[in-house]
Amino acid sequence: MRILLDHAHVLTMQDGDVQYPDGYVLVEDDRIHALGPSSDAPQDADRVIDCHGGILLPGFVNLHCHVSMVPFRTMGDDCPDRLNRFLFPLERDAVGPELVYLSALYGIGEMLLSGITAFVDMYYFEEEVARAVCETGIRGWLGETVISQSAPDAENEAAGLARCEAFLKQYAGHPLVTPLPAPHGTTTVSADALKACGELARKYDTLLTLHVSEMDAEIRHFEGMGTTPVQYLDSLGLADNRLLAAHCIHLTQEDIRLMAQKGVRTAHCVGSNMKAGKGIAPIRDLHLQGVPFGFGTDGPSSGNTLSILDQMRLFACAQKTRYHDRSLFPASQILRFATRGGAECLHARDRFGQILPGLQADLVLVSLDAAHLFPLYNPYSALVYGANASDVSLVMVGGEILVQDHRLTRMDLPSIREKLRGAMGPFLQAAEKYRDII
Amino acid sequence: MRILLDHAHVLTMQDGDVQYPDGYVLVEDDRIHALGPSSDAPQDADRVIDCHGGILLPGFVNLHCHVSMVPFRTMGDDCPDRLNRFLFPLERDAVGPELVYLSALYGIGEMLLSGITAFVDMYYFEEEVARAVCETGIRGWLGETVISQSAPDAENEAAGLARCEAFLKQYAGHPLVTPLPAPHGTTTVSADALKACGELARKYDTLLTLHVSEMDAEIRHFEGMGTTPVQYLDSLGLADNRLLAAHCIHLTQEDIRLMAQKGVRTAHCVGSNMKAGKGIAPIRDLHLQGVPFGFGTDGPSSGNTLSILDQMRLFACAQKTRYHDRSLFPASQILRFATRGGAECLHARDRFGQILPGLQADLVLVSLDAAHLFPLYNPYSALVYGANASDVSLVMVGGEILVQDHRLTRMDLPSIREKLRGAMGPFLQAAEKYRDII
Repeated sequence: MRILLDHAHVLTMQDGDVQYPDGYVLVEDDRIHALGPSSDAPQDADRVIDCHGGILLPGFVNLHCHVSMVPFRTMGDDCPDRLNRFLFPLERDAVGPELVYLSALYGIGEMLLSGITAFVDMYYFEEEVARAVCETGIRGWLGETVISQSAPDAENEAAGLARCEAFLKQYAGHPLVTPLPAPHGTTTVSADALKACGELARKYDTLLTLHVSEMDAEIRHFEGMGTTPVQYLDSLGLADNRLLAAHCIHLTQEDIRLMAQKGVRTAHCVGSNMKAGKGIAPIRDLHLQGVPFGFGTDGPSSGNTLSILDQMRLFACAQKTRYHDRSLFPASQILRFATRGGAECLHARDRFGQILPGLQADLVLVSLDAAHLFPLYNPYSALVYGANASDVSLVMVGGEILVQDHRLTRMDLPSIREKLRGAMGPFLQAAEKYRDII
Repeated sequence: MRILLDHAHVLTMQDGDVQYPDGYVLVEDDRIHALGPSSDAPQDADRVIDCHGGILLPGFVNLHCHVSMVPFRTMGDDCPDRLNRFLFPLERDAVGPELVYLSALYGIGEMLLSGITAFVDMYYFEEEVARAVCETGIRGWLGETVISQSAPDAENEAAGLARCEAFLKQYAGHPLVTPLPAPHGTTTVSADALKACGELARKYDTLLTLHVSEMDAEIRHFEGMGTTPVQYLDSLGLADNRLLAAHCIHLTQEDIRLMAQKGVRTAHCVGSNMKAGKGIAPIRDLHLQGVPFGFGTDGPSSGNTLSILDQMRLFACAQKTRYHDRSLFPASQILRFATRGGAECLHARDRFGQILPGLQADLVLVSLDAAHLFPLYNPYSALVYGANASDVSLVMVGGEILVQDHRLTRMDLPSIREKLRGAMGPFLQAAEKYRDII
């Protein structure tokens, strides 16, 4: 099957920002076969899609999410310490496999509609998220959570570790699902369990992800011990190029040097970090030292929209302001972090992240129909400062069209919404307890 | 004519955040006539619109824009000092009345589509913007610019002042257009001309708007004179409740006290300020001292999207981060600034800004169809942290429906885009000179 995407403004995200203002991309089966100016487009494709001048780019990579937290969205957004005040207890009381599965279906649908073609998740009952990944066709790096308290899917840390290993075994070598251990955070998991997670990551040759240097209390905890979260993880043998550290807001220069030296990757969640008033991460400094990073939406109750387009604009605003420099991180560079930067963090640069012959056909088409996308001198600027999820008109993963004309092809989102609404009854009942704070 | 908007989640923005989760609003001619729970909805309306549970709120007020800068959008977004390097010269070379008119038509269409029902503009040939306002039906507070350099529509400051007064005369008492003087900024206009603008505002009983405490060079300039932009304006007799000061990023505590004491209003442009790396304005402190403020998108080449929804999210992120406090400015309060707060800055609280019987029917309906707007525990949160312009499905100004089913009713935006594109030829040619920096 050869699909020709023609008359697009193609942003390849290859070195040197190669672009074709009127270009084509030829997809053969699951891979990108050829690309170039439309005047050279092949005539023998099985199917031709006219992109009408829209921007064609590699799929967005979402490096940090808790997709199954859809039922929590708009609950206590402005409530301090909500993690302990209602999120943890409500999860324990009312999050089960069916809710995780239906929420994942819904949230993955939302991510595809915003142009995300690969995502990293961490939550409970991650095998249910895996089921949703397989049904929807997105790529999932799925982290089964290990935590030192009673969790929705495990009574204690040991049970969580056992669950985690079973999940790693079950999905080893899967084409869409990459399973990984996801210890919750630096203070919410014991040192022994953190080390055990590191061993699991090595044993199953995969990544490991957790929350790092995110919370004020976390920083105070390690300050009291004369160290930092990053240095603590290093002391446990976890700071290496398997580590995808989410958030990393409060870093010392020594932390940054250590991360660069050990090859630690960062999932930067600017929207979630700022909405919670936590701070602006020192990404300029991380980048100058060579620490790979990409963007994360965080869960739908933390970042609210599952869209990397939103994160790019917030990132530009935040970094330029923190460093008082308009020219810092020009739009083309920001789009690189959002696509191939994310792929690099997942050790997947040879699979996706650029429009390059031989790579997987994970592609996004952004329509220029909306009022805010005219004129277009700089397509990178248009994407970073102007576009939103509603502008995404077509999405392909591994050569299969999963979004066309702004609609999902494999799923009917309104009907999933109704199923999810139906499954949310006990959850809503349990949430009543927290009515005063949410 | 009685139009019933039924089955909406009505956010009245009245004191105490009165809302009707399943509510109605009855519009009679140009005004809001009644509202309440849908169970009490009147049965004798001439027309009934089922809002299908969407969020109905007062129209957004945009306190700072240069709407006719649409042709500059995505031009040199990341270029430092672009005002002097290419914006001023390119305006002088290539901005004429026809381009201003067509750009205003386009930009106003874009604003209506994002739910903005009243806006403050400052630019050249403002009579052309007024023409566009009358054709489109939006409310415009239109500032004719006075500047101490040769401008597109006036050779010098004196000519600009004469133009400004002619414009004030022409539109005095107009139902949709409120004309006002718009001296460019604190360092780009002479002291005499600033005073003359103040006199014009008093003579024609209107507001005055200009850029204040925005640029680093501006702050340095006044520091060198041992003062601040705000204190300088006060020394010229301009700091009073007619003054709508745009940006106000760099304020001293003394500035803030002075503004509060004199009743100065602020157009806060968080997106434009942050994208340019200029800083986060001390809005918490302004608010605590009682300085009225609302949001501005700034022009389409500064803020990129003409959407107050985007500004609300950026505002929440910026202020909570600046003050390291998640609970600062909860979503309901942010929506108040975006609606009735804006109306108050325009001394128009008795005309619009709330859903209240007797006020003008300036209303916005946000559809909940998009994936990112489910579930909905807190509609304020959904608007601030989730919604974007594409979610706005219906907009009414003074009882007339100007947007329905996400489309403009009075204008055809694609055809205006094509006309504007056609008129942009000489502009694009003139821009060639700056190719290396844009």
